[in-house]
Amino acid sequence: MQMLMGRADATPNFAMRHFVVAPGGHTPRHSHPWEHEVYVTEGVLRTECGGESIEVFAGDALLIPGDATHQFVNESDAQARFLCMVPLESECGRDVPGS
Amino acid sequence: MQMLMGRADATPNFAMRHFVVAPGGHTPRHSHPWEHEVYVTEGVLRTECGGESIEVFAGDALLIPGDATHQFVNESDAQARFLCMVPLESECGRDVPGS
Repeated sequence: MQMLMGRADATPNFAMRHFVVAPGGHTPRHSHPWEHEVYVTEGVLRTECGGESIEVFAGDALLIPGDATHQFVNESDAQARFLCMVPLESECGRDVPGS
Repeated sequence: MQMLMGRADATPNFAMRHFVVAPGGHTPRHSHPWEHEVYVTEGVLRTECGGESIEVFAGDALLIPGDATHQFVNESDAQARFLCMVPLESECGRDVPGS
């Protein structure tokens, strides 16, 4: 994960991160109380979110709601990249990790 | 401006918008109390922000702080595109326009 901007840059409300997923790679399958706003910038990814599985392509935008189990898997033979924005704070004002 | 996700989609904290700037085109030169988080997805743009002027390219990320006067100008002969994220609420809980 590459931080593009966040808490350390004094962003007031949310952070922007950049992920590169190599062919065969994937992000952790997990859930948390805060949302993700995702924009795919390169390639194709299979996305599981809340029990549904879809393919997403460069130019697609996705809202991963809080508490939805989610994962991004690169089943292609080419690199995939996406932006993932998160709020700085979650429930009860707790810091969001990676923000 | 194309809304990718925002208030109407029940995003909890911020909105994602997509802008296409034709050759010779520009966004309004203005300021407002809320920040922009910008990611350039295509082309080259001259960006004025807080009295500075720089060229930004596909893959560049920018934080436009609240109250900074800013504008994006496409001086190239090719289309440019960028994502622009804004919080849903600004000072005193007021709705951010275009969120």
